[in-house]
Amino acid sequence: MQIKRAEKYGFCFGVKRAIRLAEQNKNAVTIGPLIHNQKEIDRLKINFNVNVETNLDNIKEDSNVIIRTHGIQKNDLEKLKQINTHIIDATCPFVTKPQKICEQMSNEGYNIIIFGDKDHPEVKGVASYCSSPYQVVLDKESIDSNIVRNKIALVSQTTKNLSKFLEIANYLIEISPEVRVFNTICNATFENQEAVKQLAKECDIVIVVGGKQSSNTKQLLQISLNYCKDSYCVEDENELQENWFLDKKVCGITAGASTPGWIIDNVENRIKEL
Amino acid sequence: MQIKRAEKYGFCFGVKRAIRLAEQNKNAVTIGPLIHNQKEIDRLKINFNVNVETNLDNIKEDSNVIIRTHGIQKNDLEKLKQINTHIIDATCPFVTKPQKICEQMSNEGYNIIIFGDKDHPEVKGVASYCSSPYQVVLDKESIDSNIVRNKIALVSQTTKNLSKFLEIANYLIEISPEVRVFNTICNATFENQEAVKQLAKECDIVIVVGGKQSSNTKQLLQISLNYCKDSYCVEDENELQENWFLDKKVCGITAGASTPGWIIDNVENRIKEL
Repeated sequence: MQIKRAEKYGFCFGVKRAIRLAEQNKNAVTIGPLIHNQKEIDRLKINFNVNVETNLDNIKEDSNVIIRTHGIQKNDLEKLKQINTHIIDATCPFVTKPQKICEQMSNEGYNIIIFGDKDHPEVKGVASYCSSPYQVVLDKESIDSNIVRNKIALVSQTTKNLSKFLEIANYLIEISPEVRVFNTICNATFENQEAVKQLAKECDIVIVVGGKQSSNTKQLLQISLNYCKDSYCVEDENELQENWFLDKKVCGITAGASTPGWIIDNVENRIKEL
Repeated sequence: MQIKRAEKYGFCFGVKRAIRLAEQNKNAVTIGPLIHNQKEIDRLKINFNVNVETNLDNIKEDSNVIIRTHGIQKNDLEKLKQINTHIIDATCPFVTKPQKICEQMSNEGYNIIIFGDKDHPEVKGVASYCSSPYQVVLDKESIDSNIVRNKIALVSQTTKNLSKFLEIANYLIEISPEVRVFNTICNATFENQEAVKQLAKECDIVIVVGGKQSSNTKQLLQISLNYCKDSYCVEDENELQENWFLDKKVCGITAGASTPGWIIDNVENRIKEL
């Protein structure tokens, strides 16, 4: 069986930067998991004693605190500053952007639509910068008509899909006299998504390597399924099942933006053995 | 043969208002034709001595000058003010809006895309309010990449088609970090366009009554042709051809936003005779 990797896959700029910051700050604490990949979080814990803390009340004065790639909520950031922690900001710069946009648009009197998953940490962080009415939606059907009575700004979770974003933008443009559209979808996400589309067309099985919590990994799988019905998501090589590969000729591999290269290599090696 | 009128057709708010202003200002001069309908212009000349003047140098001090529904260029307006004319502004308020938007967006440092016909008087007027780089386009393929390097504002000629406007918006959103979309397409245009779509589906011949220069009339014909191949545009009843109606069972009638009711009635009466 031939194995092909996608043209673009895996670690994005923001994740690489966050991991470098964690490696440079031994014994630090991250607020929530640094990235959406448990194996890499474990590695940082074992090799650099970087620990995950979800309860801010457990953070001690003077400790080194790393803000995760997805950012945190505005109030939490204030709280960390109040207890005199040393803040190492590993928020992806592409996430800082929609945070700033929401803050500015609220100040300018726009209501805000955020295209994203309302429970995703990035979206919670971004939404916390809205001081005007806002709504987090996954599709145009969910948009609250009260929100669109005002002039509207539209931003996106960085890892979302462009075509759905455009659907929402088009709906808003039809009904609102002014829509200020900020395309905050990150290029790496877009490139990985374009690449898996191509890959899936050329393969009879596709393995997407990534965390089960990772938004962009889930979307890679969705896109892949549109072009190759035998597409599977695994967190590591142990989740691969031998029967998936029966009679398959070309296996594609791609990976989410928070999947480290060493896991992808392990997966590829295990596939070769099967 | 059955005759059906579209659910919505003919005079829009801005045209009605302009004609009322002309009728109230006997002996006034309009800068260019008040609306895009020669027959109505002739009627205003005969009944109210309202004359058309295209050369600003011929305008005399102290004369009553009517600004046409499409508006005029910023410099021309200044010139009229300088020669102390009495200005009666019949610019459609829906046209004044994109003029103001262009002025404001230029001031805020946006480059501007105007979706429209570059030779249309409305578009010339709107464009004259841009002091930043701008471009008038009819499709996304024509967009100059130099314009979109900056943050972008998008406006539309009031009588243009929404779906094409969205195509341009989508293209800009894909390539620009911020697109400020102003949907300046006027509701009357939109409603007339939706209505002709429905009408054309129910008829085997459609007559669109309107001026040959009228942008919204041309679009009504285009939309009608998509659903009924026997669609024709006429300026008045004299342009109707008997052979069009052979074997036809249901004839639809619609009219552009600048077509007066009396012309539509004449057309309908002539069709009944044929």
